[in-house]
Amino acid sequence: MAGSTIGNIFRVSTWGESHGAALGAVVDGCPAGLPLCEEDIQVLLDRRKPGDSKFATQRKESDTVEILSGVFEGKTTGTPISLMIRNTSQRSKDYSEIAEYYRPGHADYGFDMKYGFRDYRGGGRSSGRETAARVAAGAIAMKVLNSLGITVSAYTFSIGPVEIDRGSFDIEESRKNKLCMPDAQAAEKASAFLEECMADSDSAGGIIECFVDGMMPGIGDTVFEKLDANLGKAIMSIGAVKGFEIGDGFSVAGSRGSSNNDAFVIAEGGTVSKATNHSGGILGGMSDGSRIFFRAAIKPTPSIAKQQKTVNRSGEEIDISIHGRHDPIIVPRAVVVVEAMTALVLVDSLLMNMGAKMEYLDRIYR
Amino acid sequence: MAGSTIGNIFRVSTWGESHGAALGAVVDGCPAGLPLCEEDIQVLLDRRKPGDSKFATQRKESDTVEILSGVFEGKTTGTPISLMIRNTSQRSKDYSEIAEYYRPGHADYGFDMKYGFRDYRGGGRSSGRETAARVAAGAIAMKVLNSLGITVSAYTFSIGPVEIDRGSFDIEESRKNKLCMPDAQAAEKASAFLEECMADSDSAGGIIECFVDGMMPGIGDTVFEKLDANLGKAIMSIGAVKGFEIGDGFSVAGSRGSSNNDAFVIAEGGTVSKATNHSGGILGGMSDGSRIFFRAAIKPTPSIAKQQKTVNRSGEEIDISIHGRHDPIIVPRAVVVVEAMTALVLVDSLLMNMGAKMEYLDRIYR
Amino acid sequence: MAGSTIGNIFRVSTWGESHGAALGAVVDGCPAGLPLCEEDIQVLLDRRKPGDSKFATQRKESDTVEILSGVFEGKTTGTPISLMIRNTSQRSKDYSEIAEYYRPGHADYGFDMKYGFRDYRGGGRSSGRETAARVAAGAIAMKVLNSLGITVSAYTFSIGPVEIDRGSFDIEESRKNKLCMPDAQAAEKASAFLEECMADSDSAGGIIECFVDGMMPGIGDTVFEKLDANLGKAIMSIGAVKGFEIGDGFSVAGSRGSSNNDAFVIAEGGTVSKATNHSGGILGGMSDGSRIFFRAAIKPTPSIAKQQKTVNRSGEEIDISIHGRHDPIIVPRAVVVVEAMTALVLVDSLLMNMGAKMEYLDRIYR
Amino acid sequence: MAGSTIGNIFRVSTWGESHGAALGAVVDGCPAGLPLCEEDIQVLLDRRKPGDSKFATQRKESDTVEILSGVFEGKTTGTPISLMIRNTSQRSKDYSEIAEYYRPGHADYGFDMKYGFRDYRGGGRSSGRETAARVAAGAIAMKVLNSLGITVSAYTFSIGPVEIDRGSFDIEESRKNKLCMPDAQAAEKASAFLEECMADSDSAGGIIECFVDGMMPGIGDTVFEKLDANLGKAIMSIGAVKGFEIGDGFSVAGSRGSSNNDAFVIAEGGTVSKATNHSGGILGGMSDGSRIFFRAAIKPTPSIAKQQKTVNRSGEEIDISIHGRHDPIIVPRAVVVVEAMTALVLVDSLLMNMGAKMEYLDRIYR
Repeated sequence: MAGSTIGNIFRVSTWGESHGAALGAVVDGCPAGLPLCEEDIQVLLDRRKPGDSKFATQRKESDTVEILSGVFEGKTTGTPISLMIRNTSQRSKDYSEIAEYYRPGHADYGFDMKYGFRDYRGGGRSSGRETAARVAAGAIAMKVLNSLGITVSAYTFSIGPVEIDRGSFDIEESRKNKLCMPDAQAAEKASAFLEECMADSDSAGGIIECFVDGMMPGIGDTVFEKLDANLGKAIMSIGAVKGFEIGDGFSVAGSRGSSNNDAFVIAEGGTVSKATNHSGGILGGMSDGSRIFFRAAIKPTPSIAKQQKTVNRSGEEIDISIHGRHDPIIVPRAVVVVEAMTALVLVDSLLMNMGAKMEYLDRIYR
Repeated sequence: MAGSTIGNIFRVSTWGESHGAALGAVVDGCPAGLPLCEEDIQVLLDRRKPGDSKFATQRKESDTVEILSGVFEGKTTGTPISLMIRNTSQRSKDYSEIAEYYRPGHADYGFDMKYGFRDYRGGGRSSGRETAARVAAGAIAMKVLNSLGITVSAYTFSIGPVEIDRGSFDIEESRKNKLCMPDAQAAEKASAFLEECMADSDSAGGIIECFVDGMMPGIGDTVFEKLDANLGKAIMSIGAVKGFEIGDGFSVAGSRGSSNNDAFVIAEGGTVSKATNHSGGILGGMSDGSRIFFRAAIKPTPSIAKQQKTVNRSGEEIDISIHGRHDPIIVPRAVVVVEAMTALVLVDSLLMNMGAKMEYLDRIYR
Repeated sequence: MAGSTIGNIFRVSTWGESHGAALGAVVDGCPAGLPLCEEDIQVLLDRRKPGDSKFATQRKESDTVEILSGVFEGKTTGTPISLMIRNTSQRSKDYSEIAEYYRPGHADYGFDMKYGFRDYRGGGRSSGRETAARVAAGAIAMKVLNSLGITVSAYTFSIGPVEIDRGSFDIEESRKNKLCMPDAQAAEKASAFLEECMADSDSAGGIIECFVDGMMPGIGDTVFEKLDANLGKAIMSIGAVKGFEIGDGFSVAGSRGSSNNDAFVIAEGGTVSKATNHSGGILGGMSDGSRIFFRAAIKPTPSIAKQQKTVNRSGEEIDISIHGRHDPIIVPRAVVVVEAMTALVLVDSLLMNMGAKMEYLDRIYR
Repeated sequence: MAGSTIGNIFRVSTWGESHGAALGAVVDGCPAGLPLCEEDIQVLLDRRKPGDSKFATQRKESDTVEILSGVFEGKTTGTPISLMIRNTSQRSKDYSEIAEYYRPGHADYGFDMKYGFRDYRGGGRSSGRETAARVAAGAIAMKVLNSLGITVSAYTFSIGPVEIDRGSFDIEESRKNKLCMPDAQAAEKASAFLEECMADSDSAGGIIECFVDGMMPGIGDTVFEKLDANLGKAIMSIGAVKGFEIGDGFSVAGSRGSSNNDAFVIAEGGTVSKATNHSGGILGGMSDGSRIFFRAAIKPTPSIAKQQKTVNRSGEEIDISIHGRHDPIIVPRAVVVVEAMTALVLVDSLLMNMGAKMEYLDRIYR
């Protein structure tokens, strides 16, 4: 089953295992003429790196990206862009033990059932490291979006019970603190909470929020390829995500039509706008011109040092305690992954939309 | 943009507008040899019909399906199965007015922005009627699943503030009452609540839950084609769905690894099983052998008689009140749509998985 | 295996069997705003009909097309266009006999091996009637092309040993005579040849040529999605086609670089042009601005009244003689099918190309 | 436009330019459990290398492949297999000149029209070097086929006017001589012919033939995804191929139904077989159990030292003479590329076919 490709026109195929030689992505279908260099990509990759955060894995990878094709004289050529990130800090012996049992909350059992065996080193293909390739590809998509005036911003909304105070929201702050919270006080409280979890050999979950500004209306499709459906798939495809909601999300269940509907209004300058944004910027599967806003629920890191029960491949029940270099929380490092996946979906949707009407064909071909 | 197709091997393309001549689906890639007749499909279509419920549209369509191809002597032949449902109760004059303005909560504005104009009669392609084609195709997928011992069951969990009591859960009951609630008392309370909404010219939302039993482990992929990502996309592609969560969903944000992880255990008979099911039956993108369980949030019907503000195509702000034959709540009629979309995803995943290992090729070809 | 869909953005799915209720196509991804009515499609369908030609099947179908969706107020809306053609002249009893044996030159044996059984009536899905759906869909693609100044013209180059005289080439003539030959004298000779074949209870093959004018340069891709590769696939997917060649085709094997290369020259008006067209209008997978020119070899109709040897499903060798309403030659009726398939490939390629460079995104979105 | 991917389940994406850092392929969807090491791939890559042949480019690349992912403990894991081949012998300065003009017979002009500019070094993405990635991926497909008893063999049928004598056919010989001809005498004559061409600063074309043994019947689809249509596309996607024919190919145009039809017979052992093989092993788009046999026409290398006319980017007509390290004939090095592309198509078709009937689902899942 070929499951490592996303996108129709802007098509990304990723590859690589946690403890293999390298990870990478092939980005096929990027429009020609986009200025691109390795530094453009490195900026996003660096946001994904654990850095010196005590709340992140102690495995230190430089995550240096190489562009192997598709760029010439500083611009994309329209041919596939191959990106590679060498693994340098594998310590496979950490994992020899887990070859024999199924870690709770992990894909180990599924791999064995599906394929008959698995590359057990560091979770193999299911490792969080796989997201490095997503971020590298997403960085290119982000450059395309930015050139059209579209921006994508994600941040940590909550960690365990600690939520941000929307009154103190400051997106710049989220780029500074190690937990990616746009509220310094909340970040401090969350840090304290995480230290508690770690002391208890346990891990925590949280919620990531993401918004998109500058998206033109009418992008996406009305049936299976709804823009929110594609965003939902892309975000749910990030390991550890257990829920996705757009706009008012699950709270719409308790609201009424009269309060959930967003009135259309005429904004200054005479353009159509909306008085509220319960829809989260997408109506009937197409962008409605408002800010796109969605949320993702991230489960606690399943690898914990705390003792757990599980079974081994010989069919015996055993007690285990997972050591190694694991993040006690996935949320902060997943923030930039959410941005990357969002960018991939939006660029592909924009490209798919270019054939929406005859008038566009006339603009290009006549 | 071709957005009316879903699936890779079991591939469904739907077509049709609310007030066109007919609606339909082409199901390509259905395995040959499946017993199939129109009655098999009609059963599911009938569950989607408004019937004599006062909580559903008063537009009465027989929704009679015709199989136009792909079935011979009572069995699928492996060639495309074309399904058609004639529209018989169009009353397009109801809609002439809405041609000129953008209904809040609807796709009208998006259509105009994307395509330059729209078939405004009854919402055109964005009508809830489009789901009839999904259900017809889903009925075929369901037969494939059932033949392998897999069952899919959805029901209404809540309507507005009224939730079912899990202690009184009775799936049979959900097939009897008009609100599809598996709890007769909750259904009664919800009816009262809906009458209130209707008296107020308003509408309500709710939550649908769905579970799958009998799914073998290891189905789905570990990266972009995660089984939960594909389920999420399929469910989010149903109009009015604003959120999707699997297993513990958004509540994982507040849990810890030690409580969120499901311990693997050895069940009677020696098979691997799980002590709990926080994962909702999917780990790392692949089924884990437990019940698959997910939830969808459905927004209130946007078409309400209550007065609303909006703008017209001439750029003027106006007050409107939408009359016509609208459901005051979408939830009960969407239950079978959720089942249908789930079946489509599962069958395609099972077919995609058949090339997972060399051993399977040997079983078929040697 | 889902094999009845072609195209990425302009995506056509066909369905239907020779002796089922109907045949049809769903065209998803057609740009909105294209003027379209049933007559536009009927014109091409009528060219495919046997008419009163004695060289075509005596099965008389009106092949009347219905547009069931996707068109509103005379224009395409951007949503799927569903086309249906009812079968009216089935005479299934003609075919009861062939259920039991494998006709030489036909797909019967393959169907049984692949699916375990088959709809044997008139060849089922493998019937030439399947091409009616292709032509109906192709008619829409043709309208898109024409609106951009692109034309597609196919004709019969040869029937059996009778070839056209290129000196007498007259495309108008090919629309008049029943053999679609652009040379009246050749058509007369070919008629005499066919009468001979028919008298001998036998059938004949031939060659179709096709050219495209007005194609802008740079369309197609340089690797797997070469424009000639996609044309080749589309043409080879027409039943009975056994060969495809572009430009000088097989004769390049005997030529030299110096004679096969086309010199670029500056045409009047200063545009780049080519002094010759050995390439057939495509270089390196992309259109080069010259006339696109290719040829297809069509085998003789395999259904012949002449006695043949074959085997039945019980594994016995038998002698058969196939009666029924068969064309003694496929070529003339396939001419419009070649045009239709060409149009489908070209439109999809033009749509796929719209994201080729950043400048195009700017033209649409800024 | 994303055009560097081929296959639905066994999906290959290639990347890389002639003078970039490296070339490669990502093979996603390879069944797990296939024994695989770099040497398996190197064997085919070495057949593609120019070696010390005087009839091949003097650019000497070791073409050493690295497997970067998807293989663990000597077996494929089911996850993407990333293959990389470093370029080591680029001499970009050879090409600075061609940046300014359009080489006849090359993709240069198309690139400029499509993307606005191009990586002109060695033809960039359109270089014959791109096929190294195809061969590397094809080697994996070949291993899958071989494990099922299927073999693929291509060879040179003709070079310029020199054809092999079918009476002297010896496939082993084709693996020994530098021209891949299965007839030593013909190879000698062809060598003499090529020396003549080279002395004249010119190049030659030829024909490659390919056959497949051991293919089970019923593989392929009956409409757009006909097995011969997919083979045609894959072969036409190889640079320089201008024609494709299967079985009797273009000669069917002159034959009659009675002589072109292959009689089915009962072979020893009671299996269904065919008395002749005019079909080339495929009927109605599906394999018929006979040897699959097809031919491809290869044009002369367009890069020749002989003087030619062309135009430059400033719109002036100029005379050029192309120097550098070019093969005077493409045919021999394309033989293994034809095998590789064939293997890719066949494996994907076999995998797509696994869901053809309910009985197969039962075999895997019950």
